[in-house]
Amino acid sequence: MKEKRVERVLKALEAMGLHQMLLTDPMSVYYLTGVQVMPFERFYGLYLRADGAHVFFLNRLFHVPEDLGIEKVWYSDTDPVMELVASRIDKEQVLGVDKELKAGFLLPLLELGAAKGFVLASSAADETRGVKDAEEQEKMRRSSRINDLAMAEFKKLIREGITEREVAEKMLKIYQSLGADGFSFDPLVAFGANAADPHHGPDDTAVQPGDCVLLDVGCIKDGYCSDMTRTFYFQKVSEEHRRIYDTVRRANEAAIARIRPGVPLCELDQAARELIEKEGYGPNFTHRLGHFIGLSEHEQGDVSSVNTKKAEAGMIFSIEPGIYLTGDTGVRVEDLVLVTEDGCEVLNQYSKELEIIG
Amino acid sequence: MKEKRVERVLKALEAMGLHQMLLTDPMSVYYLTGVQVMPFERFYGLYLRADGAHVFFLNRLFHVPEDLGIEKVWYSDTDPVMELVASRIDKEQVLGVDKELKAGFLLPLLELGAAKGFVLASSAADETRGVKDAEEQEKMRRSSRINDLAMAEFKKLIREGITEREVAEKMLKIYQSLGADGFSFDPLVAFGANAADPHHGPDDTAVQPGDCVLLDVGCIKDGYCSDMTRTFYFQKVSEEHRRIYDTVRRANEAAIARIRPGVPLCELDQAARELIEKEGYGPNFTHRLGHFIGLSEHEQGDVSSVNTKKAEAGMIFSIEPGIYLTGDTGVRVEDLVLVTEDGCEVLNQYSKELEIIG
Repeated sequence: MKEKRVERVLKALEAMGLHQMLLTDPMSVYYLTGVQVMPFERFYGLYLRADGAHVFFLNRLFHVPEDLGIEKVWYSDTDPVMELVASRIDKEQVLGVDKELKAGFLLPLLELGAAKGFVLASSAADETRGVKDAEEQEKMRRSSRINDLAMAEFKKLIREGITEREVAEKMLKIYQSLGADGFSFDPLVAFGANAADPHHGPDDTAVQPGDCVLLDVGCIKDGYCSDMTRTFYFQKVSEEHRRIYDTVRRANEAAIARIRPGVPLCELDQAARELIEKEGYGPNFTHRLGHFIGLSEHEQGDVSSVNTKKAEAGMIFSIEPGIYLTGDTGVRVEDLVLVTEDGCEVLNQYSKELEIIG
Repeated sequence: MKEKRVERVLKALEAMGLHQMLLTDPMSVYYLTGVQVMPFERFYGLYLRADGAHVFFLNRLFHVPEDLGIEKVWYSDTDPVMELVASRIDKEQVLGVDKELKAGFLLPLLELGAAKGFVLASSAADETRGVKDAEEQEKMRRSSRINDLAMAEFKKLIREGITEREVAEKMLKIYQSLGADGFSFDPLVAFGANAADPHHGPDDTAVQPGDCVLLDVGCIKDGYCSDMTRTFYFQKVSEEHRRIYDTVRRANEAAIARIRPGVPLCELDQAARELIEKEGYGPNFTHRLGHFIGLSEHEQGDVSSVNTKKAEAGMIFSIEPGIYLTGDTGVRVEDLVLVTEDGCEVLNQYSKELEIIG
């Protein structure tokens, strides 16, 4: 058990008036126990109690270390597992559950009257995870460092005639050669007009002179995710595209310049959005400015126009403004940032100057 | 909409006394609509009604074809989506939900009093999916055909000094060169004593003379999964290992010989288990005989000692007996089988004779 993290979650639960919670999101369980299990269809849950009598529910097929500092309750596939779980929950109290708990487990608990009530309490774990401790910060730095080095290699792949798919297929090996454990998400590679769709997946489009080359990529290292986007230009760039690129880059920098503890996250979104609007591309910035990231590539919490939550030291999120022109081009410039005591540390060092490549 | 499949699901719901269901498992939605979306944290649901007034709930960020033959209800990230869903559900009737529905969506529906009651009804979709129609059967054949061809290539990789990881890393390219779209699951490659753990993942162990070489592998082709295990021997095989191998192979064949419509699935498990017990390895066959498979690598339904459900023509499942000796060796021989009107069709043609390789 990661005692300090558990304490922070219990404190968050207390603030919600809760004395007990059943956590089933495998990433949150990993965060709190150091145990990584892929439960698939089987029940896997960490039951936390204010009085410290936590219970870890485990199927006999799961492999976990012996000494975890928490009571383990093992069950077999033929056991009535939810009855077992219900028997350990305090029926006189409301139970917090996370949003990932599946109906296949929640409805039986309801029927068994396992608690006085059931409320969503994901935020207790998610907001704790949103503020990274020193160990996590260092792992996030390492993951992004690999991503910086990888970007320099990816750029070299862009040669006459190469397709998006061919580029994407070479990325895993490059990441691995740099020490990464794998992708944090399937890489996005988009040339020219394909980049106008922010989620375009790599296809057989070959790069053409004047195309933008958008690479939105990330790796996992020691469980922690990186995520960065750079947009290059193949052989040449038009004046309008240069103007669009500079607008996006400046929007990225404007938002980053505003980051410090206490600033509402929506103000970061606003800073980037206003700059883009001023240049006349407001309607072409079609998504939120950023998202939280850590053990998962997308964690709870975002940097959007409606999130009034304030930045706190230790938070790590993306800053990724974009401009998308259907049938023409797309640009996104994305960094991960760590909020510090007096500003922020940008985890990505790869240059944001416009680069003509190939 | 795949009308015939929807009708079969509605019929299954009717048999459960249900007039409405909310389906959220993306695979089941794909099965019924042909639409494939990865919703991640966003709500994605297909609401089915006995009277045919179905509704497809979609976030504006999802991309789906125009003409689906079903009413689409679009929502944005800032909309109160569960209120929207609740407004379309018949409050006077019980609502079936699938086991995958997340608490983050189910608890709000409960609070809104969206239905007279909420019951698990996954089986209506899962059991329909368990019996493959002609189109699916053909796709499953093609996926397993690629798997057979791939196994022949994988075997050739086993040379002096090669590690499990090196073998596993070459597999994707081989699958792709044979026309597969990707893995259906991360391949298991286990040499010697590593094979004693049925879920051992590929590591840096190098193959040694006399090792068993267990390859549990599968690909996806046109959305459908294959899954096969073969166990080879590197350069030589001991008499005991040969006896173990033959036991497992005969267990596989004994179970397959019993397959026909009407046979309880537990009897297939029993046929394999009895044979293994007779040879004295009963305690070393530590898992169920098989699992259903199709759009997902593991679908609802298994071939185990407790599943008294009867085989039906169109079902496809694995037959995968194994013997595991800790610190020594492990053997598994796995095929996919399609239940036919008068027996079964084994989808894997790759030989099950003991092969010494390398």
